[in-house]
Amino acid sequence: MRPIAIMSERTRQNAKGPLIVIGGGEDKEEDRIILREIARHLDGGRLVLATVASHEPEGYFDVYQKAFEDLGVTDLVELYVKDRAETLDPEKLRLLDEAAGVFFSGGDQLRIASQIGDTPVEQRIREIHGRGGVIAGTSAGASVMSETMLVKGTSGESHKIGDLHMAPGLGFIRDAIIDQHFAERGRFGRLLGAVAHNPRELGIGIDEDTALVLDGDRFEVIGSGCIYVVDGAGVTHSNIAEAKPERALSMYDVRLHVLSSGDTFDLAHRRPAAVPDVTRSHAIEAQVTG
Amino acid sequence: MRPIAIMSERTRQNAKGPLIVIGGGEDKEEDRIILREIARHLDGGRLVLATVASHEPEGYFDVYQKAFEDLGVTDLVELYVKDRAETLDPEKLRLLDEAAGVFFSGGDQLRIASQIGDTPVEQRIREIHGRGGVIAGTSAGASVMSETMLVKGTSGESHKIGDLHMAPGLGFIRDAIIDQHFAERGRFGRLLGAVAHNPRELGIGIDEDTALVLDGDRFEVIGSGCIYVVDGAGVTHSNIAEAKPERALSMYDVRLHVLSSGDTFDLAHRRPAAVPDVTRSHAIEAQVTG
Repeated sequence: MRPIAIMSERTRQNAKGPLIVIGGGEDKEEDRIILREIARHLDGGRLVLATVASHEPEGYFDVYQKAFEDLGVTDLVELYVKDRAETLDPEKLRLLDEAAGVFFSGGDQLRIASQIGDTPVEQRIREIHGRGGVIAGTSAGASVMSETMLVKGTSGESHKIGDLHMAPGLGFIRDAIIDQHFAERGRFGRLLGAVAHNPRELGIGIDEDTALVLDGDRFEVIGSGCIYVVDGAGVTHSNIAEAKPERALSMYDVRLHVLSSGDTFDLAHRRPAAVPDVTRSHAIEAQVTG
Repeated sequence: MRPIAIMSERTRQNAKGPLIVIGGGEDKEEDRIILREIARHLDGGRLVLATVASHEPEGYFDVYQKAFEDLGVTDLVELYVKDRAETLDPEKLRLLDEAAGVFFSGGDQLRIASQIGDTPVEQRIREIHGRGGVIAGTSAGASVMSETMLVKGTSGESHKIGDLHMAPGLGFIRDAIIDQHFAERGRFGRLLGAVAHNPRELGIGIDEDTALVLDGDRFEVIGSGCIYVVDGAGVTHSNIAEAKPERALSMYDVRLHVLSSGDTFDLAHRRPAAVPDVTRSHAIEAQVTG
């Protein structure tokens, strides 16, 4: 069984498989850096394409089959559930039993969470991850990875206090809120708003054709765009709890990391993984601000 | 002469007039918070509407005349120069001699800098500012206020290393680069890219219908959106000088302040003007990341 082979390649400390979280719009025709990374982790094993996020899943399978075909992903199967009742269907569950990975395609993240959350399907997906399988998601499939997920919020403008809907996600990544199509749809405002709610959660904004590959506590960036990590831990002031709903956000001393291909980030220490200690940054800053 | 009256109201330390820098799209029909602020500083004096940024200035004057009419700005005159030769025209210079303020409307910031930079028109505008007159600018008229101005750069995507054009601006604000239509056009990427070039310059991104009112070293935010201050002083790593032009930006430890109506910021100390000392922020952060 493939998944076992994958697990044996992994570090002993972390039996869980990698998480590949994509900002949407990944290249499907040329270099396919991100899809290639998914294929590499599958190592010839079965990939389940979960199109659950979509109200109309037709077409997704063909697109991904074509994109993955010559990358060695020959055993691609689709999983769709129209409603929660279907998550009990033994045939659908059997699709997952022999899978080496699951890939959530785009659509509406609330459909994923509401239709498969706390069902046998979700349980099977956790088992795949637990035995070293890869879990990937793009666009809505990326948002749903976080513990608290961003459901709705305005793009292309600054955050207004009342203007954000969050909900519990699948929680494959803890203490982080993920947003996607990030620079392309101007979503800085809404991610900052989300972080203001509770700076315990890191905000992670992922551009199109860009992904984080998480292994244990550390992720690496791949793809053509940027990943923005918004850290509110040092925030000295925000108006999120006081201001009226139509009021614009105010929040001082946010720390921001702009990451691109090859950069690594340590979620446990909330730091880029390969740079001087934060005390050094503070020292430089102290000199400048006097 | 009006300007004298204005100057006498101001602090002795700062004879210069206020600078009102608007992110474009300011409300011209309803509350008109920003235009009202300009009118307040004019105190009945003449406002010169400089439409120099536009290749086709027709229409601007009528729009602003209507918008300012019942705010007490009755002496509104238009200044347009097609080319640098016209900046010597005594009639145009006379328009400025009795002005209490100048308002740069939108268009192309490079037109303003290239057509009036280092001309008698620019000199007259500096004199107005020096004797306490208000200098305002919206959109392109905002960009041109900074010492180094952002001329061109892609909106709605992350910064690619080679992808930014900067030029000397009029320099009414030192050590800052201003960008406008900020959240609305998704310009975070390009402002971060600009700051990466030399973190000495603060990046100031101004939303539509939002303005900073600078008096001395301190500005206050007015209007409905946000102003983002990007401080690169503590940056520990950036790839701006090494990476290939098509490469996405990487920059760690940027400090970001999200400001909205009523917030004040001290440019000299690079800090919001009314919050705990930065050391407190660092202490909180050390506990979280520690």
